[in-house]
Amino acid sequence: MASNMEKTLNGVNSCDNQCHMGDPRLPVKCPSVFIDNFVLNGPTVDVHAAESFIHQAMEIILDEAVTKATNVREKVCEWRSPEQLKDLLDLELRDGGESESKVLQRCRDAIRYSVKTTHPRFFNQLFAGLEPYSTAASFIVETLKTSLYTYEVAPVFTLMEDTVMRKMIEMIGWEEGGDGLFNPGGSMSNMYAVNLARYSHCPDIKEVGLSGSARLVVFTSQEAHYSISKAAALLGIGTKNVYVVPSDKRGKMIPSVLEEQIKAAKSEGAVPIMVNATAGTTVLGAFDPIDEIADICEKYNLWLHVDACWGGAALMSKKHKHLLKGIHRVNSVAWNAHKMLMACLQCSAFLIRDKTSLLQRCHSAQASYLFQQDKFYDVSYDTGDKSVQCSRKPDAFKFWLMWKALGTRELEQRVDRALAMARYLAQEIKKREGFRLVMEPEYANVCFWYIPPSLRNLPDGPELWKQLHTVAPVVKESMMKKGSMMVGYQTHRDKPNFFRMVVISPQVSMEDLDFVLDEIHNLGKDL
Amino acid sequence: MASNMEKTLNGVNSCDNQCHMGDPRLPVKCPSVFIDNFVLNGPTVDVHAAESFIHQAMEIILDEAVTKATNVREKVCEWRSPEQLKDLLDLELRDGGESESKVLQRCRDAIRYSVKTTHPRFFNQLFAGLEPYSTAASFIVETLKTSLYTYEVAPVFTLMEDTVMRKMIEMIGWEEGGDGLFNPGGSMSNMYAVNLARYSHCPDIKEVGLSGSARLVVFTSQEAHYSISKAAALLGIGTKNVYVVPSDKRGKMIPSVLEEQIKAAKSEGAVPIMVNATAGTTVLGAFDPIDEIADICEKYNLWLHVDACWGGAALMSKKHKHLLKGIHRVNSVAWNAHKMLMACLQCSAFLIRDKTSLLQRCHSAQASYLFQQDKFYDVSYDTGDKSVQCSRKPDAFKFWLMWKALGTRELEQRVDRALAMARYLAQEIKKREGFRLVMEPEYANVCFWYIPPSLRNLPDGPELWKQLHTVAPVVKESMMKKGSMMVGYQTHRDKPNFFRMVVISPQVSMEDLDFVLDEIHNLGKDL
Repeated sequence: MASNMEKTLNGVNSCDNQCHMGDPRLPVKCPSVFIDNFVLNGPTVDVHAAESFIHQAMEIILDEAVTKATNVREKVCEWRSPEQLKDLLDLELRDGGESESKVLQRCRDAIRYSVKTTHPRFFNQLFAGLEPYSTAASFIVETLKTSLYTYEVAPVFTLMEDTVMRKMIEMIGWEEGGDGLFNPGGSMSNMYAVNLARYSHCPDIKEVGLSGSARLVVFTSQEAHYSISKAAALLGIGTKNVYVVPSDKRGKMIPSVLEEQIKAAKSEGAVPIMVNATAGTTVLGAFDPIDEIADICEKYNLWLHVDACWGGAALMSKKHKHLLKGIHRVNSVAWNAHKMLMACLQCSAFLIRDKTSLLQRCHSAQASYLFQQDKFYDVSYDTGDKSVQCSRKPDAFKFWLMWKALGTRELEQRVDRALAMARYLAQEIKKREGFRLVMEPEYANVCFWYIPPSLRNLPDGPELWKQLHTVAPVVKESMMKKGSMMVGYQTHRDKPNFFRMVVISPQVSMEDLDFVLDEIHNLGKDL
Repeated sequence: MASNMEKTLNGVNSCDNQCHMGDPRLPVKCPSVFIDNFVLNGPTVDVHAAESFIHQAMEIILDEAVTKATNVREKVCEWRSPEQLKDLLDLELRDGGESESKVLQRCRDAIRYSVKTTHPRFFNQLFAGLEPYSTAASFIVETLKTSLYTYEVAPVFTLMEDTVMRKMIEMIGWEEGGDGLFNPGGSMSNMYAVNLARYSHCPDIKEVGLSGSARLVVFTSQEAHYSISKAAALLGIGTKNVYVVPSDKRGKMIPSVLEEQIKAAKSEGAVPIMVNATAGTTVLGAFDPIDEIADICEKYNLWLHVDACWGGAALMSKKHKHLLKGIHRVNSVAWNAHKMLMACLQCSAFLIRDKTSLLQRCHSAQASYLFQQDKFYDVSYDTGDKSVQCSRKPDAFKFWLMWKALGTRELEQRVDRALAMARYLAQEIKKREGFRLVMEPEYANVCFWYIPPSLRNLPDGPELWKQLHTVAPVVKESMMKKGSMMVGYQTHRDKPNFFRMVVISPQVSMEDLDFVLDEIHNLGKDL
């Protein structure tokens, strides 16, 4: 049965219907106009029915995706295998439509079988938790259906993006200001950094390409996010030309080795263009020593980018911002407000210190249909040509509204509390038998092993590591099938699988952390 | 005043509060635990207050961003200059937070001063109209805060993306199936196409880069979207190596010239890798002759991509799909469901015919923290490594829910009606004095000049063109300041500024189109 919303054309469009020339309320009779059998008079959609549907969907969202999803007594996930889930969801798309009630049931089902990342026991990713202000902001963005490229189409969000970026730039410490844009994720921000570094090194590459150019080289640490490598592949630099600088035991890039590698690259005839430092690595939460790396970049005239997607939040905290000491000296920063600051996905800023419109020059294509120069307003507010995208979401609004609501101080408290929780968790792990920290946490990442009783008598060595390696995947499977919590695990260098816990949301309490440790023990004690 | 939502830590966290070990409802007394002056017992956020805020915001969104925004009697936009708007919005971000009522007022203001792209008289972009199902779907996506990279985090949306893509692939006519992913906009899809063409030509480039490689060349028509050029710049191919193939008067690529250019490129020692054909150009809505271009690509072994971001919707229509004749022969297609099919922004599919995991091989980086191979389920459902992004939005759900609700037939009707409306508009323009079509529309784009009475006696020629060039910008300024409608304008080749109308939404009626023409006359008749 087709939905009622889009009425039969003969219904709403017939001549009996009002003819809304100028004023749609006037019940003026008018002759039907046909083309291709379509009556063209009057809209064919019933906006009231649309409103009613959205209203009903909102009720479901509030009940199921807000209230129930964040309730600690509910499951984090309701695991189904792909095959089971395919049956449950009736995925197939058909010629005919479905009734409103059926579609609403589809909404309920989609929520039910989705993972509740806003649940206080979801620790699987570097994002978590319900942030009501940015949630409301994202609803507004979705409903207004806006793209951020010209002031004429997105006046409010253009100004808000600018405001948020200027504030972020202030926190970075670029006293002269800077430039930037929000874009769909930290990987994209890192990609922008590589492109700007290259453009800054040699603007001609934009036009003539890399064929026949020297071999360009980018440096990043072995702990850095894989997006630097993806960017190098995409940009035609090549993954082999990402020189991987070793990190120390805590996961921090070793500056002296960086300098050696720069020299070596030069001696090979390659051209170093950029160093990527990481502030808050994905697994260990380590911070590269930005100040020392900046000294080297200055010496060799290299673009210094900081991937602070995860660790940038510490800039909000007077207590913890020392972790990013030296960031005011770098050329560009990637900073995701959707991670520890909890904005809705995505909310990724890419910020640069340059104020000579490098971003614009590097990416502009001057589309005449969009960026007309004879507009009646100041077209410097048309920011779209800074981007490699055309349509771009006004993600900055999610951060702006949240920041307005909470103020800088409350954001600072969130960060400080999350890090206090990480310290609590580390302390607990050290106290409990069978748990072992991979290392003392520097930031919010707490990495640890759970050693089941059956392995506790084994001496440290290959046999223990080999058996320990199988524990986390099994415990993970059990927690997901039970739906009690979600915690990520991974190997790292030569280390066997370990859990990585990340505390973010103020919904999470000490009791939830105790629960996680208890539950890991319960699920793993008989292995 | 700080928001009430995040309560003072001494309040909610004090020992008087319940201690929810295992069961949070139990009012067990427990000692407060402090770290860094934070009491760690219990959550510091009141979920009920968060719900209440979201509920109130939803009411505002329904009233202002749905009901009022789509009401033909309301303004399309409430124009303010950047300076005025800065004052009105009080953009500054401060140390302290704001009260709930203040934040709700911020929501109202953001909506008020934003452009209403869902208004029936918004014709400024290639998207428009309220689509209730995809709106509800996007709310669900935002609330669930999900990223599409692993099945474990996004089981529902992983399967839905696969289903939607398989259905789109069916409509393209790739009988053996294919592959793909949704990504943040058509520009990104086109960028993927260039990268796949290059990888397909020479996989080693991913590792070794373009330095020292032959000069690679990409072909696209002069009417194509600027994203091909942006992609060539980004990928290190260079904008000069985008060979621009002339189009005929209707805006269609001329295949014979394409072939000449391919030969010329080869004779220069360059290596052609790809042709981008456009199905529905941005300005004129022209369709390149895919079949003829496919013959050439087969002959020269070139990757053929079709940018059908705008024109792909015609594949839904038995009546109009002939516009894309031959599309089953191409290697990749970009198709945006957020344009004529009206899904919320963004909803951009990139689809490829290859079934040998080319997409995966081209983009994978095998991050060990995300794509563990020892998971307990079939990891072929972890699709994240196909992408250059890390976090990726489950945009496909917006299309899936809408498709379920409407069925293929209703989507087809939408497309057919939109094109019938375009024909009506073209007929009206031909009837009315002072209006002149740039050309007969092939698709939904209706391009036309308005010639004010003062210019009607001028003969066709440079003087008329020069004066006509100034008309559209002035009329545009007037319509925006009045808020009565929004219609785009641009120059094109040697043509002076003209209006481009695009009819999309079933909210739009013949009367709205009459209104547009009347209003342009009213605003321009004294120029």
